[in-house]
Amino acid sequence: MSLLVVGTVAYDSVSTKSGSRENAPGGSAFYFSISSSFFTSSSLVGVVGSDYSEKYFSMLEKSGVNIDGLEKVDGETFRWSGKYNDDDFNQRETLETHLNVLENFNPTLNTSNKNSKYLFLANIDPKIQNQVLDQMQTKPKIVALDTMNFWIDDHQNNLSSVIENVDIIFMDENEIKSFTKKDNIITAAKFVRQLGPRIVIVKKGEHGAIMFNEGDIFTAPAFPIEKVIDPTGAGDCFAGGFMGYLSGSDDLSPQSLRKALIVASVMGSFAVEGFSTEKLAQITHSDIEDRFRGIHGMTTFEPLNNNDTLPKRIS
Amino acid sequence: MSLLVVGTVAYDSVSTKSGSRENAPGGSAFYFSISSSFFTSSSLVGVVGSDYSEKYFSMLEKSGVNIDGLEKVDGETFRWSGKYNDDDFNQRETLETHLNVLENFNPTLNTSNKNSKYLFLANIDPKIQNQVLDQMQTKPKIVALDTMNFWIDDHQNNLSSVIENVDIIFMDENEIKSFTKKDNIITAAKFVRQLGPRIVIVKKGEHGAIMFNEGDIFTAPAFPIEKVIDPTGAGDCFAGGFMGYLSGSDDLSPQSLRKALIVASVMGSFAVEGFSTEKLAQITHSDIEDRFRGIHGMTTFEPLNNNDTLPKRIS
Repeated sequence: MSLLVVGTVAYDSVSTKSGSRENAPGGSAFYFSISSSFFTSSSLVGVVGSDYSEKYFSMLEKSGVNIDGLEKVDGETFRWSGKYNDDDFNQRETLETHLNVLENFNPTLNTSNKNSKYLFLANIDPKIQNQVLDQMQTKPKIVALDTMNFWIDDHQNNLSSVIENVDIIFMDENEIKSFTKKDNIITAAKFVRQLGPRIVIVKKGEHGAIMFNEGDIFTAPAFPIEKVIDPTGAGDCFAGGFMGYLSGSDDLSPQSLRKALIVASVMGSFAVEGFSTEKLAQITHSDIEDRFRGIHGMTTFEPLNNNDTLPKRIS
Repeated sequence: MSLLVVGTVAYDSVSTKSGSRENAPGGSAFYFSISSSFFTSSSLVGVVGSDYSEKYFSMLEKSGVNIDGLEKVDGETFRWSGKYNDDDFNQRETLETHLNVLENFNPTLNTSNKNSKYLFLANIDPKIQNQVLDQMQTKPKIVALDTMNFWIDDHQNNLSSVIENVDIIFMDENEIKSFTKKDNIITAAKFVRQLGPRIVIVKKGEHGAIMFNEGDIFTAPAFPIEKVIDPTGAGDCFAGGFMGYLSGSDDLSPQSLRKALIVASVMGSFAVEGFSTEKLAQITHSDIEDRFRGIHGMTTFEPLNNNDTLPKRIS
């Protein structure tokens, strides 16, 4: 099945305790599409400036991403730079954000993209997310949404109008607490589900993720990584694994959604092992399957069957 | 099998956003033994003052805890008081600590306790933990240890000499990072395993726990709790579930250790739902089994068999 993503394509300058990169390829749609392309045909809608290097167009194409919807316009590409706390990868400081060509981006979808079966609204201005949603000709089987604290804090109305129209939403723990003003993620996820999304996925970084789907809760651990290099884009790669799996399998059963969350966790674990998509560029499908099996091994235990009981003190 | 615990028995005064309790029964050995007694015969070694209420002796006895080793001496019982942050249960401030009768506590084990098959050194001065270890007549099948930041920061030498002699150690995420001066828990767990303990269990509160056992990693999620009342003693109840299960089943296979960690997670989840042991006093063995099954349901997904692959983009 076809998977469409709209989001940012950027030049990122990132510094972590493991090193730094200047003007490395990044952006939510860039990360997402490279990750999802391991599993399905992805198509990217976004915008770059005239300074965007040919080699990153080829990188996307070599990964199998359809970039017919990636506009190149006069001006500079969106730029972000940030620095991660040396003691805590969960804390980062944004040093600079230059919207550049993103400022006047009004995507127009081609016919093929208008009929995508799976749609991912990656982190970008909710107005643009809505513009894409409005242009869909056939209702996608699944529309999923990612966002970030900036839109939650300052564009809550626009964001809420997108949220009402999606099936799946990804938020990290702090985002969902701040969006819902609830300090318990179970309560917060219930609240978000009442706004529209059938499925709420709460990302917890190194602590894994929890998926809330009707009354069903499924937890996925993070694949344990000893040497984190750069967490930038990990959430996008996580979502790329999830949506890539769903689109590639075209199976929306509860069991398939669970496997998708494990694939998401695996793709996030690779993402943090390199700057930009450097690590993703080195892995094969079988590396992904190895970690999938690894997580299975880390989580299985013998069930209690109906007549089984736990040991009891003999009084 | 018989499980011996040495640790504190206390009066706790606790305040959380859900309410408060003055002079409620608490202490690491108190919590641990009530939790473990659901599964096995536990015996408590500790000390209280002449002010310790008869009703808490009976509470322990009614729970099935053998209190022959609980000394009552002149003076006041150990007292702790603390306040949890309204926005974050992971942050608490200790308001007062009065060691009282704990200050001169030098436990002497009776013959039965000296021959316990399972020994748990609950959070208490490492000197006392060592005194108990030294008195064991037959080498226990398992010796496990819990501790806290206070002993890690200010009594590292004494603590290290206990750690060398135990099979299993429980630490929370911050404790293991601070003890090892490593900021990655996988690296930190490897480091601790080199000091002696075969099994390292890292507690992550609402994010569950990870068990490191030789090359094997097992992750247990927390059972999701919407209304946390008081986290005091949750770690002790967690360890009580783990050791209670091991002692009750007398099975040290890798599969049994995994189930023990799930039981631990379940007991921790009940502990936080009430002040002191108020919630534990209300539950039955079948409530525990329900949550055990619940966690199984939250964590299972279909494996990839040898010839299975994840979906692949058709290039």
